[in-house]
Amino acid sequence: MPGICHDGYLTRRHVLSSTGAIVAATVAAHDVAAATVDPSRIVVTARGRACTFVDLTHRLTRDFNFNQATPRIAMEPIVGSGKAVGMHLNRLTLVEHTGTHIDAPSHFAADGRNLGELALKDLIVPLAVIDIRDKARSDPDAAVERADILRWEARHGRLPAGCCVACWSGFDPVRDFVERMKLPRHPCPGFGIDAADMLINDRDVKGIAVDAMSIDTGTNGPAYPVHIAWLHSGRWGIEGMAGLDQVPAAGATLIVGVPPVDGATGMPIRAIAMF
Amino acid sequence: MPGICHDGYLTRRHVLSSTGAIVAATVAAHDVAAATVDPSRIVVTARGRACTFVDLTHRLTRDFNFNQATPRIAMEPIVGSGKAVGMHLNRLTLVEHTGTHIDAPSHFAADGRNLGELALKDLIVPLAVIDIRDKARSDPDAAVERADILRWEARHGRLPAGCCVACWSGFDPVRDFVERMKLPRHPCPGFGIDAADMLINDRDVKGIAVDAMSIDTGTNGPAYPVHIAWLHSGRWGIEGMAGLDQVPAAGATLIVGVPPVDGATGMPIRAIAMF
Repeated sequence: MPGICHDGYLTRRHVLSSTGAIVAATVAAHDVAAATVDPSRIVVTARGRACTFVDLTHRLTRDFNFNQATPRIAMEPIVGSGKAVGMHLNRLTLVEHTGTHIDAPSHFAADGRNLGELALKDLIVPLAVIDIRDKARSDPDAAVERADILRWEARHGRLPAGCCVACWSGFDPVRDFVERMKLPRHPCPGFGIDAADMLINDRDVKGIAVDAMSIDTGTNGPAYPVHIAWLHSGRWGIEGMAGLDQVPAAGATLIVGVPPVDGATGMPIRAIAMF
Repeated sequence: MPGICHDGYLTRRHVLSSTGAIVAATVAAHDVAAATVDPSRIVVTARGRACTFVDLTHRLTRDFNFNQATPRIAMEPIVGSGKAVGMHLNRLTLVEHTGTHIDAPSHFAADGRNLGELALKDLIVPLAVIDIRDKARSDPDAAVERADILRWEARHGRLPAGCCVACWSGFDPVRDFVERMKLPRHPCPGFGIDAADMLINDRDVKGIAVDAMSIDTGTNGPAYPVHIAWLHSGRWGIEGMAGLDQVPAAGATLIVGVPPVDGATGMPIRAIAMF
């Protein structure tokens, strides 16, 4: 079947050709060369085995400011002695929680681990993708609920030890977030508190991820119950994840490429899936 | 042979027990829990195959300021409406070229690619580690030279297509850099211009990396010939790489986990080796 990989999920080029402009815009946010060669997906052969890597990261542009009055990222050129030989560099100022980024436990838990304390064992984990796109089409505050987790497990087996559970709602921050922020209560898909409690107490999970910009739904609003429960439990969250249409529901490994900045509560990341 | 992996390189715990305090300090810079469980090296079993990941990144602390008069990283807490429910976050200001970091081509080439333009195919590459520790012990400006590359190839075969070539000098920025910066000409190991020319013209190489803080040697000083030739050729560099004692000379894959910040000339990274 043309455009379909042997293991059943779509290639980005197929998505492009079948659904058109909206997804094409998403791809453009990854890389301007997307129309010819897909830069967000590569196959690497290492020690005789082919391994697919998918970029789960939105390119971090200044348009990732959701409130134009308060820029979340800015650059100021530094002019030093290197300028004479052509050196360019900037002082970069950014709100830690910008673009595709991680929330460290210290984002809500004052005594929780900060970004410099997250080691590889916390950041390279199995990835489980839970598809809630159907309900997100009719409910802008759709949540991953206990039933969605149980449905995933009925198909793929129990959530793997130490995994990251990702909410795939179809939300695209580059396309959707600015408009959503203009609405009352800022509707937004995410995780329900019952599902978060289940993942904390009854499963072995290191992180949760969302394609939207908050692990809480818009309904949960300013009370942030999922942020509070999840981050106080010592776990991390990822917000603004891209490319979930490109990875299998089960069987991938997530690599969270985040600079280990001591004391930071979060930071833009390069999130990569490997399978 | 106790402490030696089956494929011949040392585990970090072996290095700790055999060489003592200096290396122990290096490990402490990675993670305070290093004495009990090594957090910079993990084995992940994915799809039935064991895969080792090694962290090649120094923890980015405020001590990574090499000139105390001009801090390279600072955090300012942001107080917003989330404070009522315990939210903490910071506005982070950093010089792009701080800690274990990448130089994008635009660091020297005004028309070169910036960080937002580096795609996965540029950032997941074979890793070749060239050991020049012997000469670096007697020459603080020791360089990777053509002969060192040819010696590596005599043993491991031609440099793999699209690789990163790393200079393993034994330099540790956490331990060595502040003292070196006090000396005239700031002696520092790196790449020689002849070696850089060879890698640009006669091999297929995407990046070079150093464990010291400049791809140029101290001898090359403020003229930056390697930065100029290398970055103008469209390739990237990594400076301040950690953990090169933990990876094989040939056969590993380097994953450069860098947030794709549009317009940036560089950025702290999470560099990870996989084998």
